[in-house]
Amino acid sequence: MSPKPPAALVFAASDPVCGAGIQADILTLSALGCQPLTVVTALTAQDTTGVHTLLPVSADFVRRQASSLIEDIPIAAIKIGLLGCADHARIAAGVAMQLNVPLVLDPVLASGRGDMLADDSLREALLDALLPHTDLVTPNIPEAHALFPEMPPDAPLPQLAQRMIERGARHVLITGAHASIPEVINTLYGAEGKIRADHWPRLSNSYHGSGCTLASAVAAFLARGYSMEAAVYEAQCYVSQTLRHAHHPGRGQAIPNRLFALKDHLP
Amino acid sequence: MSPKPPAALVFAASDPVCGAGIQADILTLSALGCQPLTVVTALTAQDTTGVHTLLPVSADFVRRQASSLIEDIPIAAIKIGLLGCADHARIAAGVAMQLNVPLVLDPVLASGRGDMLADDSLREALLDALLPHTDLVTPNIPEAHALFPEMPPDAPLPQLAQRMIERGARHVLITGAHASIPEVINTLYGAEGKIRADHWPRLSNSYHGSGCTLASAVAAFLARGYSMEAAVYEAQCYVSQTLRHAHHPGRGQAIPNRLFALKDHLP
Repeated sequence: MSPKPPAALVFAASDPVCGAGIQADILTLSALGCQPLTVVTALTAQDTTGVHTLLPVSADFVRRQASSLIEDIPIAAIKIGLLGCADHARIAAGVAMQLNVPLVLDPVLASGRGDMLADDSLREALLDALLPHTDLVTPNIPEAHALFPEMPPDAPLPQLAQRMIERGARHVLITGAHASIPEVINTLYGAEGKIRADHWPRLSNSYHGSGCTLASAVAAFLARGYSMEAAVYEAQCYVSQTLRHAHHPGRGQAIPNRLFALKDHLP
Repeated sequence: MSPKPPAALVFAASDPVCGAGIQADILTLSALGCQPLTVVTALTAQDTTGVHTLLPVSADFVRRQASSLIEDIPIAAIKIGLLGCADHARIAAGVAMQLNVPLVLDPVLASGRGDMLADDSLREALLDALLPHTDLVTPNIPEAHALFPEMPPDAPLPQLAQRMIERGARHVLITGAHASIPEVINTLYGAEGKIRADHWPRLSNSYHGSGCTLASAVAAFLARGYSMEAAVYEAQCYVSQTLRHAHHPGRGQAIPNRLFALKDHLP
């Protein structure tokens, strides 16, 4: 037997392409030395060009998946991706209260390609039920705006981050992959404002699952005991490598290679 | 961009523990240099001690998941694990006919722990609809018997293998983890009878997901162009390593470590 890796509990949807969703989480957490545990919140039918159908799982079955895991396995971190409805957010909040471990929330309101994946009641439940239990929320710029439709569309990012802090999040990482400037700038905020900004060269491809991979990677490092700032930095380094080793399986977006470090070990 | 790895299409259930099911397939196929593509056939709530609830996905949504993938991504192999009902077997058979690539069928009728996971109509659909398109069927000894309830319970394994060949399977690998002899003997059969038998030391632990891992590993090597005999041998070597690096996340069975080769690469 090997030593027990820290376990990270994921709430997310299934992506059959294995670019995003629980598939991205399973690969990322495993690659970074954690045992993934997955609560499926929705099924999708999709390909590399877009989500064709989204089928939420019943709240009751989301609860059952989670409670079976929690009663059996010690959990060191929680990562929340796409939820199927507002009740899922309340169930995840209940789990977070019970476990009291670092929680990373990727507030998936639309796919990176623009497919709408959440309604208003889910958006409100993320803010009301989940943000108060969130150690890090990781919106991209469109998501940061979409979380607060009452704010002006040109609201500055520090102000949006401040609103998330006011709603209970301990830290906010706004990712810049969707901005139209030459660099990708990811900025970490805390209660006192900006903590750090990391600059990355903007890659020419479009990637499916980079947001899920980043949030899961932060959860992995937090599960392993890293500080928030170190976890956020190490996770970005990891994601950068997965993108550099990405490939194009179909007609659409590229898929990050979460196991790039295995390359030389194939039989 | 990296070169495109061969893609392998999986039909299987979700295991929240990430020991078996699509979670095992995702890790195994990725670790062995393939791009996994996953059609979820059922959700489960389970822990390391057993399956608590099994919720089959509708046949229509199984079909949608598969057709979105097939229209977008070239597929080099198919692996079939747990199916939720007989219609799933017929859908998978239709996909197999359309794609005409190597197909590995893990005939999951019960979990390794004995939880019943299939009814008689599914068993018949595996035989009638899927075996004729199967390049390798990988039952353990209880499954080999369960496939043919009309045969005597002490029917010899070569005779059971012969029956699977008669029903259309090109090769049969009967795995010996559930036998009560000091070694695990896995025997590969073809149309002419026994091809090879591999002997492995019996490990003292009980593992969750070793069957899924083995079948996925064979599919990975077939997708990469290995011959059947080489794929079956390499897959067993791989599984043996995953078991040696396994760990106990909870109160029950151990979980194979599909990424054992990454150990030294963790940041």
